[in-house]
Amino acid sequence: MSEEKEKIQFHLTEELVEQVEQLIELQNDKELHQLLDEFHYADIAEILDELNLEDAIYVIKLLDSETTSDILMEMDEDNREKVLKNLSAKEIAEEIEELDTDDAADIISELSEDRQVAVIAQIEDQDHKAEIEELLAYDEDSAGGLMAKELVKVYETWTVAGCMRRIRGQAKNVTRVHSIYVVDKQEKLIGRLSLKDLIVAKSDQKIAEISNANVDFVNVNEDVEEVAKVMAKYDLEAIPVVDENKTLLGRITIDDIVDVLKEEAEKDYQMAAGITSDVEADDSILDLTRARLPWLFLGLIGGVGAFLIMEGFQEAFNKYAVLFFFTPLIAAMAGNVGVQSSAIIVQGLANNDVKGSVNGRLIKEMLLAALNGFILALFLFLFVWASQGDAITALAISVSLVAVIVVAGLIGTFVPLFLDKRGIDPAIATGPFITTSNDIFGILIYFWIAKLILGI
Amino acid sequence: MSEEKEKIQFHLTEELVEQVEQLIELQNDKELHQLLDEFHYADIAEILDELNLEDAIYVIKLLDSETTSDILMEMDEDNREKVLKNLSAKEIAEEIEELDTDDAADIISELSEDRQVAVIAQIEDQDHKAEIEELLAYDEDSAGGLMAKELVKVYETWTVAGCMRRIRGQAKNVTRVHSIYVVDKQEKLIGRLSLKDLIVAKSDQKIAEISNANVDFVNVNEDVEEVAKVMAKYDLEAIPVVDENKTLLGRITIDDIVDVLKEEAEKDYQMAAGITSDVEADDSILDLTRARLPWLFLGLIGGVGAFLIMEGFQEAFNKYAVLFFFTPLIAAMAGNVGVQSSAIIVQGLANNDVKGSVNGRLIKEMLLAALNGFILALFLFLFVWASQGDAITALAISVSLVAVIVVAGLIGTFVPLFLDKRGIDPAIATGPFITTSNDIFGILIYFWIAKLILGI
Repeated sequence: MSEEKEKIQFHLTEELVEQVEQLIELQNDKELHQLLDEFHYADIAEILDELNLEDAIYVIKLLDSETTSDILMEMDEDNREKVLKNLSAKEIAEEIEELDTDDAADIISELSEDRQVAVIAQIEDQDHKAEIEELLAYDEDSAGGLMAKELVKVYETWTVAGCMRRIRGQAKNVTRVHSIYVVDKQEKLIGRLSLKDLIVAKSDQKIAEISNANVDFVNVNEDVEEVAKVMAKYDLEAIPVVDENKTLLGRITIDDIVDVLKEEAEKDYQMAAGITSDVEADDSILDLTRARLPWLFLGLIGGVGAFLIMEGFQEAFNKYAVLFFFTPLIAAMAGNVGVQSSAIIVQGLANNDVKGSVNGRLIKEMLLAALNGFILALFLFLFVWASQGDAITALAISVSLVAVIVVAGLIGTFVPLFLDKRGIDPAIATGPFITTSNDIFGILIYFWIAKLILGI
Repeated sequence: MSEEKEKIQFHLTEELVEQVEQLIELQNDKELHQLLDEFHYADIAEILDELNLEDAIYVIKLLDSETTSDILMEMDEDNREKVLKNLSAKEIAEEIEELDTDDAADIISELSEDRQVAVIAQIEDQDHKAEIEELLAYDEDSAGGLMAKELVKVYETWTVAGCMRRIRGQAKNVTRVHSIYVVDKQEKLIGRLSLKDLIVAKSDQKIAEISNANVDFVNVNEDVEEVAKVMAKYDLEAIPVVDENKTLLGRITIDDIVDVLKEEAEKDYQMAAGITSDVEADDSILDLTRARLPWLFLGLIGGVGAFLIMEGFQEAFNKYAVLFFFTPLIAAMAGNVGVQSSAIIVQGLANNDVKGSVNGRLIKEMLLAALNGFILALFLFLFVWASQGDAITALAISVSLVAVIVVAGLIGTFVPLFLDKRGIDPAIATGPFITTSNDIFGILIYFWIAKLILGI
């Protein structure tokens, strides 16, 4: 049996963190090594995220670059930034040498421009450097920005035996092989093979005979969200990236897509809550404020707008004070309906589920809102009539509720569609933006209808 | 080169759907076969989702089970349900024979109990049937409910050469091999190997010598969200599933986790918008109403609560009507702040980012809310003073805003934490639940403070 101990499930405990801190304090490198060598790099990264900056840097400098490069990739982005600030360009370059090209490019792009130049200059492996520089040129939200140069490729003219010999060398550099890509003499992607295919084939067959021409691929400039959709749809674990001429440029693996999916979900969720940048629960108060205040300000302005509308109707006060007591209800319903409608549309757009004509959707949303509004308005009518004794007032408020719900539903449905057609992320339309605008429209419509029905 | 044509990127167009519909109308099976054989099963599923039920069934009955079983898995759940209703138990069993055990178990569990019994009785392959029945016994949100029985396992006593011979047979049944699992004589998981390891090893070595004892695994009863976290954290593409004795029971592959991640994100997003069940933009009006109405009702009740509070303060009306004009603003700010706070906490809980003591979090949230509240209240104070000319009223409203924001922030922070500790999904705390309760608290606090400061 190989030397590694049996896998024990990792648990990040306070005791473990304290144990590490103490070993660092005593500068007991030997025991620290022994302790940390047992852990997966993702687990060590979790430990480092709990240490203060000085201790984290101590550990990074203690362990070898092959391990620390992986640890750095797994650390929280903000902590990684602080650690990198405390490493010299040469030290960072040593980490870069150990990383796959996609991770290397990601780390370098997190540095300031001056540092990027300094670090790249220190990379000794010239091929590695050239590949990283190529990747840095691509947009970070494109396939080129996500891909790695590490892959296993074979030429169609090789035999299976020759292939086995040569890929031993290539495969050592590739963490997970997945598909082996088959190219022609001009480096154009023409097919794929699996290790399984190689194993079951006869050793004198030519690669061209066993290669599968049916290979999925993405263009290097394709949006990462599209890449994620393709990979999820066809259950792919890796996909080759090509240029317009189908020249094989790199590949994207499913673990990177999993990260993209998680980040996308978080971004949409935060946008729906009105948080403008990528913050976490443990960020500083200043960072959190900067992310949250803009949308709160929007809500404040919306509230002022509501005030001005209500002030405009204040002659109605003396006669119909009860109208004003129901404004929070009307505004809240408008907001809730708007958020529901926009959430469904935004998800539908993300899943390419939104089909059918615009008119069809208009009619459907109006019917849906009218149905929901009618049911709710019925209950409201009975309540107001019972509590106020006045059927006309009850009617005014209930009819307003139906109208407000229909309009809020339409706004919630069509604003995301409109944004999407203009190439703007429709998820902006959810959350405080929708609730605030629906509040205003809701109150406006409410008082107009009340004015109509009650003759004020 | 093998027979498959070169991959052309698939586009679902109206023309394509019409073409398929016409061929079905003419019952031109030969051309229909030729057309569809070019497409990946996920693409054919997209086409079928566009056809009416009769046409979809026609295609399912036309193509062979090996293809249609995969197509059925990829179809929209509602459409699949309708198609399955129109197949006999024997026909469904034929599809089941072709599916991997995890997909087979999923499809069977979608049927009614009577049909499940009927279909299982028709499965000819007894091993396949036994494995499916085993999987059906597990909770669908556990590792057991997600795993498949298909995997490649070798015994530690085999040699590399013997291994290569035997896994050719096993590997034919496994779509993607990933890791080969090493077990002892009692079928206990003791290590793993990759195909790459096998290729670079000498043929007379024993498996025990080259096996890697450091193998991640999950317990069969583990929650799928936990499994997803482990696989994302360690960049795994497959993970073996074991029981308490470490007996190897099955494995989960990354494509299933990708689906779990996407469904989780959608569920949270819909919960944040106040939608109770899994609906899509193109569902029927009745289904959409059933999903949306409950939360709207909650909002209605909240609105009625707000009305009752305001009615209780109505003597203040004549003197301070302006207070009532600002209630939508106060309520909206309370709602926005609450949603922001809860969204950050819910995401933090999902990412295991929420550390630190409860008291520390309390203080941080209060400071954050106070800071945001103070900035917004300053602007509000200036506005009210300028528009009303009365500094005391302006003070009352502004101080209320700060108090309301602090309380809303605290509610938004601690309700998700409280739910999470009780084992309830904290995402329920976002959306209409939070906005409605914060509206009520907000208005209550507003009028209390106004009463205090203005002496009403």
